Amino acid sequence: VASEESDQLALERIVFFSDAVIAIAITLLALEIRLPELTSGDDVAAALTGLGSHYFSFVVSFLVVGAYWLGHHRMFRVVRRFDDTLIRLNILFLLCVAFVPFASSVIGEHGDTRPAAVFYSLVIAACGIAELTVWMYASHRHRLIDDAFPPAAVRSTTRRMLLAPVVFLLALPLTLIHPYVAMVAWLAAFPLSFAMRRIEHRQHPA
Amino acid sequence: VASEESDQLALERIVFFSDAVIAIAITLLALEIRLPELTSGDDVAAALTGLGSHYFSFVVSFLVVGAYWLGHHRMFRVVRRFDDTLIRLNILFLLCVAFVPFASSVIGEHGDTRPAAVFYSLVIAACGIAELTVWMYASHRHRLIDDAFPPAAVRSTTRRMLLAPVVFLLALPLTLIHPYVAMVAWLAAFPLSFAMRRIEHRQHPA
Amino acid sequence: VASEESDQLALERIVFFSDAVIAIAITLLALEIRLPELTSGDDVAAALTGLGSHYFSFVVSFLVVGAYWLGHHRMFRVVRRFDDTLIRLNILFLLCVAFVPFASSVIGEHGDTRPAAVFYSLVIAACGIAELTVWMYASHRHRLIDDAFPPAAVRSTTRRMLLAPVVFLLALPLTLIHPYVAMVAWLAAFPLSFAMRRIEHRQHPA
Amino acid sequence: VASEESDQLALERIVFFSDAVIAIAITLLALEIRLPELTSGDDVAAALTGLGSHYFSFVVSFLVVGAYWLGHHRMFRVVRRFDDTLIRLNILFLLCVAFVPFASSVIGEHGDTRPAAVFYSLVIAACGIAELTVWMYASHRHRLIDDAFPPAAVRSTTRRMLLAPVVFLLALPLTLIHPYVAMVAWLAAFPLSFAMRRIEHRQHPA
Repeated sequence: VASEESDQLALERIVFFSDAVIAIAITLLALEIRLPELTSGDDVAAALTGLGSHYFSFVVSFLVVGAYWLGHHRMFRVVRRFDDTLIRLNILFLLCVAFVPFASSVIGEHGDTRPAAVFYSLVIAACGIAELTVWMYASHRHRLIDDAFPPAAVRSTTRRMLLAPVVFLLALPLTLIHPYVAMVAWLAAFPLSFAMRRIEHRQHPA
Repeated sequence: VASEESDQLALERIVFFSDAVIAIAITLLALEIRLPELTSGDDVAAALTGLGSHYFSFVVSFLVVGAYWLGHHRMFRVVRRFDDTLIRLNILFLLCVAFVPFASSVIGEHGDTRPAAVFYSLVIAACGIAELTVWMYASHRHRLIDDAFPPAAVRSTTRRMLLAPVVFLLALPLTLIHPYVAMVAWLAAFPLSFAMRRIEHRQHPA
Repeated sequence: VASEESDQLALERIVFFSDAVIAIAITLLALEIRLPELTSGDDVAAALTGLGSHYFSFVVSFLVVGAYWLGHHRMFRVVRRFDDTLIRLNILFLLCVAFVPFASSVIGEHGDTRPAAVFYSLVIAACGIAELTVWMYASHRHRLIDDAFPPAAVRSTTRRMLLAPVVFLLALPLTLIHPYVAMVAWLAAFPLSFAMRRIEHRQHPA
Repeated sequence: VASEESDQLALERIVFFSDAVIAIAITLLALEIRLPELTSGDDVAAALTGLGSHYFSFVVSFLVVGAYWLGHHRMFRVVRRFDDTLIRLNILFLLCVAFVPFASSVIGEHGDTRPAAVFYSLVIAACGIAELTVWMYASHRHRLIDDAFPPAAVRSTTRRMLLAPVVFLLALPLTLIHPYVAMVAWLAAFPLSFAMRRIEHRQHPA
């Protein structure tokens, strides 16, 4: 019903709201790191180094959420039209992202247990699947700036978005060996993503 | 006193500030979920599944606040003029939204008690009534982009905005049976909202 | 050095950053409200009504910070030029605002003591003085959209900005009688502000 | 692949996301200040003044993060083009900034110990080095609005960005004397930064 210009503003507001929720979730990750209460005789240095698994979960979660933000950023650069369904799918994606700080605190506190590693993997995979769903919906029925985004680019974006949930789901059985083995596998997502992007750039230099 | 363009920027800033407050409130909902302190012998999986009512209140609150954001988004797409009263009513709406994380933590912690369910219902209904008040004020005296938004659309928006407070207030007596019965009734707000929107689209295809 | 258009964007970014900090501070106010740990026999309703002073400090602080945001919003509608000093003064204002949630938690917890009431008054007055300083600097040396904002409007804005710090400083001695007497005096700031605005509108209808 | 205008929007979104993360981190600094639980006989005034080191760490951290924001603001005023590497470096900078509230809580709680002072210095220096890396990358290969930003301005910006990490790293050995001596040295960063800027303005009046 509203004008073309107001549509553009409304789209920007969706992007803005998403950015704000992701920015808050990513920054709250650090709130989960807390020094235990020390008495005057305690060693502050030992307490700081004793938080190793919290630093690890903070850094991994920050990079993962940062990568999801980057995916969202790339996706909405080419979205032109939106409807209520796209907004609702996007809210479900944000719901998953807002849940990551809790999952990150669980892995920071109990990273050496299998339930914590499984729980974290499922939450991260859910974020990825939700983002992929937004993308699947947005890239159909002429919702993209179609003249600027060829089908091959749509497919390569879909492939890259599949990477994170696939890695985190494939790493699930590795928790049977040891949670730490699964965590090392998670880190593989980053070089894999770089490699995929490089191969695509060689095939379709933009 | 300022120019037309500066008026547009000032309106955008109100929208922006609202988005930021709603985004923070919606993301803080997850901060209320906390794993209890575990000793080394405790079962992490049991602790995670034991937080069921916290997950429920997080998801319901996220979807409710998300729906209020969507209503605010729809409303301000068609607002053209603003004054201090509109800003003040909007601040009252934001005050209610900022209070939701506390209400959500109460229902997450004590969802099986009637006072918690009544308190939560009242807070959610207050949000809806505050948003409706902003809309009632904004949709009068030529504050909307009038040529693009016919009276029938104003009325259908008003009806949709009434839905959430009405559902949460009607569910109040159900807490007398059991808090969980009221909660199931809350969830009815979502399919009802979809249905209302579908009927309207059939009547006034935009 | 940069272009006119980039200057406009840089100014918008300052406004945006301020909005974000104020929005976060205002939403964090509700984080300070926490239900005490209850055991199964405890009365949830009694616990909820027992938080009365926390609700009061939340509402007063929300309205005060909201009013400071509204002042900031009005001020930056007419600012055209900025320099590093304006940015630094603005950061000092934001520092004061970011401190309000702590002051609000102090008054919520210990509102019946004189030190808490004095501390809160000083923090709120500091915010107002900092905002006034930003305005004093911004309204000089042709930093405003001068053709649209006459000297009389500058003076009336200054007067309105003086109101909050003056009320909170004048209420300080009232804490000697009882902290609650001072709190009632704080609430006087809101009708006073409305009245000042109404009188000005009658004198200079815009 | 997308249009020029969409590139501009995408760049603004990076800036926006950074602003949001920095705004949240800077506002969360105050969350680390908490009044200890008092029993009815305790002195609220004594408890408030007893938080001296927390206020100090809040103010120092707020000003430091504010200065990093100002640096980021200046930097992105002249950035014209971006790529994935620039976004990733920027995310690493934001990771460091999001970690500051934790470092600030450590210095607030244990500021009189050497490990806390060393830890804080390293975190603040890491932020500065990360921001410098973003700038080094952004200022090469024609990523700046080159006609508006001469090489001399690039070099002076680089020098100013080096200041904070250099001060915080040089202050490290001072913690051997006493943590408080290092803290006084930190404060030297602010007048030094003013002085550098004044000298440059005299050499290259813009």
